[in-house]
Amino acid sequence: MSVNILCEKIRTLKNPTVVGLDPMLEYIPESFREGVLAQYGNSLEGATQAVLAYNKALIDALYDIVPAVKPQSAYYERLGWQGVKVLYETVEYAKKRGMYVILDGKRNDIGSTASAYATAYLGTVDVGGTVCEPFGADALTVSPYLGSDGVAPFVKLCEENKRMIFVLVKTSNKSSGELQDLICGDMPIYERMGNYVSEWGKSLCGKDGYSEVGAVVGATYPQQLAELRAKFPSVFFLVPGYGAQGGTAKDIAGAFDKNGLGAIINSSRKILCAWKEAKTDDFADAARKEAIRMRDEIMSAI
Amino acid sequence: MSVNILCEKIRTLKNPTVVGLDPMLEYIPESFREGVLAQYGNSLEGATQAVLAYNKALIDALYDIVPAVKPQSAYYERLGWQGVKVLYETVEYAKKRGMYVILDGKRNDIGSTASAYATAYLGTVDVGGTVCEPFGADALTVSPYLGSDGVAPFVKLCEENKRMIFVLVKTSNKSSGELQDLICGDMPIYERMGNYVSEWGKSLCGKDGYSEVGAVVGATYPQQLAELRAKFPSVFFLVPGYGAQGGTAKDIAGAFDKNGLGAIINSSRKILCAWKEAKTDDFADAARKEAIRMRDEIMSAI
Repeated sequence: MSVNILCEKIRTLKNPTVVGLDPMLEYIPESFREGVLAQYGNSLEGATQAVLAYNKALIDALYDIVPAVKPQSAYYERLGWQGVKVLYETVEYAKKRGMYVILDGKRNDIGSTASAYATAYLGTVDVGGTVCEPFGADALTVSPYLGSDGVAPFVKLCEENKRMIFVLVKTSNKSSGELQDLICGDMPIYERMGNYVSEWGKSLCGKDGYSEVGAVVGATYPQQLAELRAKFPSVFFLVPGYGAQGGTAKDIAGAFDKNGLGAIINSSRKILCAWKEAKTDDFADAARKEAIRMRDEIMSAI
Repeated sequence: MSVNILCEKIRTLKNPTVVGLDPMLEYIPESFREGVLAQYGNSLEGATQAVLAYNKALIDALYDIVPAVKPQSAYYERLGWQGVKVLYETVEYAKKRGMYVILDGKRNDIGSTASAYATAYLGTVDVGGTVCEPFGADALTVSPYLGSDGVAPFVKLCEENKRMIFVLVKTSNKSSGELQDLICGDMPIYERMGNYVSEWGKSLCGKDGYSEVGAVVGATYPQQLAELRAKFPSVFFLVPGYGAQGGTAKDIAGAFDKNGLGAIINSSRKILCAWKEAKTDDFADAARKEAIRMRDEIMSAI
């Protein structure tokens, strides 16, 4: 099962963190970026080649200490289909290096269309007898506004193809409460979504007691994080909002169970742009140092 | 303004419908599909070339009678980055033919990332002084689970770049009510979302009184459709669920204002697969006939 693989990687590296690969061009040192643009031109092609080289250098610098990467699809789509090609190549490269890949796409739609999204990221396509893997991620984030029948096709592929999804429950942004904190009946929406997530995954539990259907819960809401951890012991958490968004190691401690499992904490900008604070152009080395600092900080807090 | 362009196209063609371009390989007649696959191979490349040729033939058969197309991103992503390239080429081709393009991606994320999505579909990217348009759609569908700050970057680009978004309010699927119909305080979630949508667009109204921030409301819930029409006179509706999903012309009548404006009704499978019912391989001609039938049916109901 996919959740077993994720837990095993976290245990082996003693590191429950994931690096968000959200490449904006300004996150790439000018010296590095300009070299690639000079070769490929000031175009989407040039920009995406700079991103690919940057991502590969980061993965090379991180794969032996960090168990997972989380490419955020928006930053690739922003560079057109050329960017989406580089998203594919980034997923492929990270998997080759043994990293677990959580594709952050927050996909959602009605059943038949959700099924197409699930196939895109977690499945395979048969073209005249040839089996093709469109993106081949280990896990995908999913947005739940449409309800169960929009999530079911993703859950089905989790089961058939041994993959994971992380469903948005309580997101890290400031206005997440506008919808997610509304009280309906006797509980807030985010808790109700937690119930659904727990239910959807209940027949897909791995050996540590966590299921293939996880939840996104932000580090910026430590109280809800701890409350949801206590209520949903089988739901693995993907936790954004640590680092640049303001979440601290103390804030995320409540996401973990008594064995120090049950969550993976994401950091993007703080690692990708560590070279800026370190005043160096060696972005890969700076990212590695920040990833180690983050690991140690989190391991000492849980 | 983008909403003015959409209203104008609908008025000119006397047709408030949009054709969903959701190409599954089995929607393409075998004779046509096999010809392309023989040329390009049984691969994602072959499959996407078949889709592109199919889409172009459909657009050629529809552009003088139907004002808009709605490519559903999932069906392109399902064919990998090669599929996304064909999505781009489809958008480009439809615009060249004068059609209004609503890209159905249901994108959503926190502010900084939502901004990257907005740029991808509604904006431009500066690469070393060269301005590139990643996808160049006229409009994009957006999912609202994250609240205002996740939608604001899309609204900002609507204003700056004269584009539209359609935010999910009441979706056409069976389980949409699980979240959207919950009563919080004195109103259901979908009505609350309607209030937000109305508010987000209030400074972006065009000459017919509709704003650049529209809503997705399903044909399969005629009562809510009419109720939302009455409550939110400045919100233009994108209405899925007609045709293959079960919505009828009578069901969607309530989506329109007294001038017969205010909504655009989508049909996908019923038009794409009209050739099956007509027992012909001439899918383009069958699609045109079904599009005309749908137009006449809707025009006589409103």
